[in-house]
Amino acid sequence: MDFTSDNTFGAHPKILDAIVAANSGPVASYGADPFTQDAAARLCEIFEHEASVFFVATGTAANALALGAICPPWGAVFCHEDAHISEDECGAPEMFTAGAKLVGIPGFAGKISPADFEKTLASYPRGQVKQVQPAVLSLSQLTEAGTAYACDDIAHLAGLAHEAGLKVHMDGARFANALVAQNCSPATMSWRAGIDVLSFGATKNGALACEAVIFFDSAMAEAFAYQRKRSGHTVSKGRFLGAQMLAYLDARLWLDLAKIANGHAARLAAGLAKIPGVRLPWMPDANEIFVIIPGAIDKMLKAAGAAYYEWGLRDYPPEVIPPSEGEVFVRLVTSYATASADIDRLIAIAQGIVK
Amino acid sequence: MDFTSDNTFGAHPKILDAIVAANSGPVASYGADPFTQDAAARLCEIFEHEASVFFVATGTAANALALGAICPPWGAVFCHEDAHISEDECGAPEMFTAGAKLVGIPGFAGKISPADFEKTLASYPRGQVKQVQPAVLSLSQLTEAGTAYACDDIAHLAGLAHEAGLKVHMDGARFANALVAQNCSPATMSWRAGIDVLSFGATKNGALACEAVIFFDSAMAEAFAYQRKRSGHTVSKGRFLGAQMLAYLDARLWLDLAKIANGHAARLAAGLAKIPGVRLPWMPDANEIFVIIPGAIDKMLKAAGAAYYEWGLRDYPPEVIPPSEGEVFVRLVTSYATASADIDRLIAIAQGIVK
Amino acid sequence: MDFTSDNTFGAHPKILDAIVAANSGPVASYGADPFTQDAAARLCEIFEHEASVFFVATGTAANALALGAICPPWGAVFCHEDAHISEDECGAPEMFTAGAKLVGIPGFAGKISPADFEKTLASYPRGQVKQVQPAVLSLSQLTEAGTAYACDDIAHLAGLAHEAGLKVHMDGARFANALVAQNCSPATMSWRAGIDVLSFGATKNGALACEAVIFFDSAMAEAFAYQRKRSGHTVSKGRFLGAQMLAYLDARLWLDLAKIANGHAARLAAGLAKIPGVRLPWMPDANEIFVIIPGAIDKMLKAAGAAYYEWGLRDYPPEVIPPSEGEVFVRLVTSYATASADIDRLIAIAQGIVK
Amino acid sequence: MDFTSDNTFGAHPKILDAIVAANSGPVASYGADPFTQDAAARLCEIFEHEASVFFVATGTAANALALGAICPPWGAVFCHEDAHISEDECGAPEMFTAGAKLVGIPGFAGKISPADFEKTLASYPRGQVKQVQPAVLSLSQLTEAGTAYACDDIAHLAGLAHEAGLKVHMDGARFANALVAQNCSPATMSWRAGIDVLSFGATKNGALACEAVIFFDSAMAEAFAYQRKRSGHTVSKGRFLGAQMLAYLDARLWLDLAKIANGHAARLAAGLAKIPGVRLPWMPDANEIFVIIPGAIDKMLKAAGAAYYEWGLRDYPPEVIPPSEGEVFVRLVTSYATASADIDRLIAIAQGIVK
Repeated sequence: MDFTSDNTFGAHPKILDAIVAANSGPVASYGADPFTQDAAARLCEIFEHEASVFFVATGTAANALALGAICPPWGAVFCHEDAHISEDECGAPEMFTAGAKLVGIPGFAGKISPADFEKTLASYPRGQVKQVQPAVLSLSQLTEAGTAYACDDIAHLAGLAHEAGLKVHMDGARFANALVAQNCSPATMSWRAGIDVLSFGATKNGALACEAVIFFDSAMAEAFAYQRKRSGHTVSKGRFLGAQMLAYLDARLWLDLAKIANGHAARLAAGLAKIPGVRLPWMPDANEIFVIIPGAIDKMLKAAGAAYYEWGLRDYPPEVIPPSEGEVFVRLVTSYATASADIDRLIAIAQGIVK
Repeated sequence: MDFTSDNTFGAHPKILDAIVAANSGPVASYGADPFTQDAAARLCEIFEHEASVFFVATGTAANALALGAICPPWGAVFCHEDAHISEDECGAPEMFTAGAKLVGIPGFAGKISPADFEKTLASYPRGQVKQVQPAVLSLSQLTEAGTAYACDDIAHLAGLAHEAGLKVHMDGARFANALVAQNCSPATMSWRAGIDVLSFGATKNGALACEAVIFFDSAMAEAFAYQRKRSGHTVSKGRFLGAQMLAYLDARLWLDLAKIANGHAARLAAGLAKIPGVRLPWMPDANEIFVIIPGAIDKMLKAAGAAYYEWGLRDYPPEVIPPSEGEVFVRLVTSYATASADIDRLIAIAQGIVK
Repeated sequence: MDFTSDNTFGAHPKILDAIVAANSGPVASYGADPFTQDAAARLCEIFEHEASVFFVATGTAANALALGAICPPWGAVFCHEDAHISEDECGAPEMFTAGAKLVGIPGFAGKISPADFEKTLASYPRGQVKQVQPAVLSLSQLTEAGTAYACDDIAHLAGLAHEAGLKVHMDGARFANALVAQNCSPATMSWRAGIDVLSFGATKNGALACEAVIFFDSAMAEAFAYQRKRSGHTVSKGRFLGAQMLAYLDARLWLDLAKIANGHAARLAAGLAKIPGVRLPWMPDANEIFVIIPGAIDKMLKAAGAAYYEWGLRDYPPEVIPPSEGEVFVRLVTSYATASADIDRLIAIAQGIVK
Repeated sequence: MDFTSDNTFGAHPKILDAIVAANSGPVASYGADPFTQDAAARLCEIFEHEASVFFVATGTAANALALGAICPPWGAVFCHEDAHISEDECGAPEMFTAGAKLVGIPGFAGKISPADFEKTLASYPRGQVKQVQPAVLSLSQLTEAGTAYACDDIAHLAGLAHEAGLKVHMDGARFANALVAQNCSPATMSWRAGIDVLSFGATKNGALACEAVIFFDSAMAEAFAYQRKRSGHTVSKGRFLGAQMLAYLDARLWLDLAKIANGHAARLAAGLAKIPGVRLPWMPDANEIFVIIPGAIDKMLKAAGAAYYEWGLRDYPPEVIPPSEGEVFVRLVTSYATASADIDRLIAIAQGIVK
């Protein structure tokens, strides 16, 4: 009963099969192989747009390299105050931008509101030499609260950013889960909504270690190959990144896996919500549930071997009643690989029906 | 007939098998899994020394992170003027040290002589504020010229470095090939010879993407986990790095593969050396051959589909007669996965026997 | 009637005299001159503590170099959310630390409360690899709101910081003004209260361009000479920094000048506070006044040629009623060089007595 | 008898007078004052070109900021192997470029030959991702050997650089001395010869602490104000930089001072050259003499209180017979402030006439 993260599970068998299948014979190294090139072309098709596509092995690399390509050292990256790039990457964006500042914006359920974005933006006037300069808006889709922005909301925020001369990055570590939640096309949720650069995650949703950085405007990617090389992220046997991505995209595997994971979470949320004393501070959109549970239930779950992270918010927005003394705030993440029985069991334990 | 590099080949089947075998069930992410821990322990055994061991996916990451851990921004890293860290990583050490200077030392056949090292060191007096401060000696084993330092030579150089207050790093991208060439123990060729930090490569010798950074003095590794994280090199499904390394080390696979690769190269060198007009500027120790061939032979080889890199030296040492107009300087690399028949065929083509 | 800043005025005549007097004959460059050495010794006497003292020409250099010496790239610097280092140095601390994160803490009147510091600190648990690590608490004395921490408050905050393994930096750009306000000894307001490194400003209070970085623990200053050099802050004709500081400290000039400036501000605040519609959101401690004035008064002042900055707070704490539509929030800074008549005149204009 | 450097002397009295004269009354800070603006305009006149001009207090700041503006982190800066930026700034260019590589080119008497530049350039092919990319050619005028490039030679080198897509920087710490030596116009020795960015020194030639960074193409200076701020090089009382530069340029003071300094050196060189056993490895062009003297003379000079640096070359070019056992290689620098009698005396001591 592991609900700690979607990266505690391994890779999907089809991804592994593709790796094994790509193994034979010599091919060019460092990404000049046909697997890599086909995977890039396939992403262009799926996104219905010409793009410069680069593969790396980790999500932090994808985000930090993407930000490094569009934010100067004296720039500001605006993001939600709980954003992964700000809170969970040990300063990677600062390293890859050579010192830019991440400016956190508060917001309910992991989302930045246009009003809050505008207010923050106003406090960084362009040309004010003493301050870092507005450079990037970075949105997480899924957000760190497991919610998904509506495409219109992305477009609204991106529009404000572009008007102010910023570039827009999307941290799509769970892009597939968000896409399934919004039930729209990849194009609609990215470049059509104003995203300039997308970190397109595959690892959490079934790949072994593969993420793509997709620049919808190739001009922004001019120096990316050098930045990737000098940060040690150009994998020598690049074929294995390409092969993973091809398998991930093949026959809608990526969407199918995200649907399963999201479905697990929906069932879990519905089951828990009915239990007295359990409350969800906001409704999940995809495969992450944030839930406040009585301490007694927390104890029963742990006693039964359930694994998950305790959570917390640095600042509780007015919409959320913070956990009281006896309550525990927890995050539960589901994967396509989560056993369906584990969902049932977790609910039953929380209900006090089984141990 | 691919002789371009040992990373144009895929992974050894046993490595792939291990990846597949490690896939089932949830395990802790980010390297807290048992595969990673076992692999680290196994390396300590093999090196007969307690060590702090970290896994990453690329050789450049291993080197740059290792150097970042032992060289301050105002430091100098002394290395051979053709060293991979200086010439082939697009400035990664400079990025990871936040601006240190790599000081190239010339030397025949990829090796630094103690006299040249001392001379260079003398031109960076400690405490001279206007100059970067001597911080690290980095040795490549194999060198970039395909040669292997004798363990005594390493010890001599490392001794000079330690006396002067430097730390010693070894770029062991082809550590296994060098070890087989020197026929000694891993300990003898590393910490017993004075190496403080070792980039222990597995990728070129059969892994899919796996390198270890081994600190023989754990104090130097104190901040490594943070540096690895903020550079995006902490793989989320870390089990797959651990699994690769376990398989690589298991039942001496790593040494067996290196022996095969070295044997191929020896046979290739012997075959080519006999051909009139072909000359080897220095003798190969392991799986890389550097050879100067008549242009006519180069054409025949290429016409037959042989792939390899043209080479060149920025400065030719007195020991080497530079290629003349009609000659071509080439590098040929062999892998455990190189077909034995390809060796024969290359020689035969060069001999003009077959096309 | 210039109230924009204390750096719109020139240097005190005694400082200029000292520069001229120091000019004759050759002396060693780069700070090896007797002026520099005497000035460092004099600071040690005044602070009653052995210290490593370095001079630079700007306050941003002093702060950024100080932070660079005590915060690693993966570190967090905790400071007030309006701190100069965070908001007014265009990312200098990020540059000099090679990417550390500045974590802003809100607080009334420019001050951090122990409770808020502890709360923030708790959200950066040590050893949590995904997050930057707590490294430094930086306090501004004067704060950016023109207030001065009581020495006990500094000691309390520094104590919490030290307990958690942090170093403590003080941005003392207006140290003299704060010292006069607190009426204590330099030692009491610095190392006795737990300050490890002090940016000791002189420029705003009468020097031409001179700040000292004072390390009360010399071990932290080990690499400072290199960092200063490689950031271009080692002035070649260093004698002129030493000479400025000697004159600044001579015969209590620094304290006398700060007293005059503070006195001007006190008189100005008292005068303005009596005017109907004028309100001070908090009381000034030294030479900076923050005041909310009716728009009509603002217009009269500007019409009369008064110069000052409009101000604003990103977030208004509960203690402050934000300016309403018709009001203007302004900052008025006084200097020892402010004409006494300008104070009277400003008050009289605001009273509507003169134009 | 101080011949160690031109920065062991103070500032010229006219410069000090200008500082004192600029002191009265409030003016805008951070370079928005009329002194700064007039000085920038005056430089544009003197250089007969529109330019973006920025003032800083040190030569290292000028060079490092200039390079940071035109070289990306993955770039290479080509310079003479003894260049100040490479050997005497403790890695400042590496810091300000966030990690670029300085590639040293050998050459007689401090100069790079076109052939050597082309050879080096050829070893950094554009688009080769594994290598840093050619970005900047930086020439020192005066060179570190005290010689001055002919304007045609600068134009030749800059032409090669521009053809290859590089920008060209000139380290003009001793620009005035070189200009007097070449007897040409500032325009001819800078932008007309292809210089894009010039570090225009004044400190060594009579200023207290003032250097200008002059961008002849303003597009390259777009982000300079931010870079200067975040590196702590925006002086708050900027009027004093402007005032120094105005006085320096007024009535050809700068050229007169350089003429005096150069004249001193010429007389010194001529006097020394006649002494048996003394030899000049190359002829000086301006105010720095490099000379190899018998050890006995060295002892006499030191005994008499003469101060100068011992010198040395990392590698002696074929044109120079290295100092033998009994010889000492020294550098003697003259300033406008050097006493004429000191020149006579040094020669007389070396001749053995006086002690």
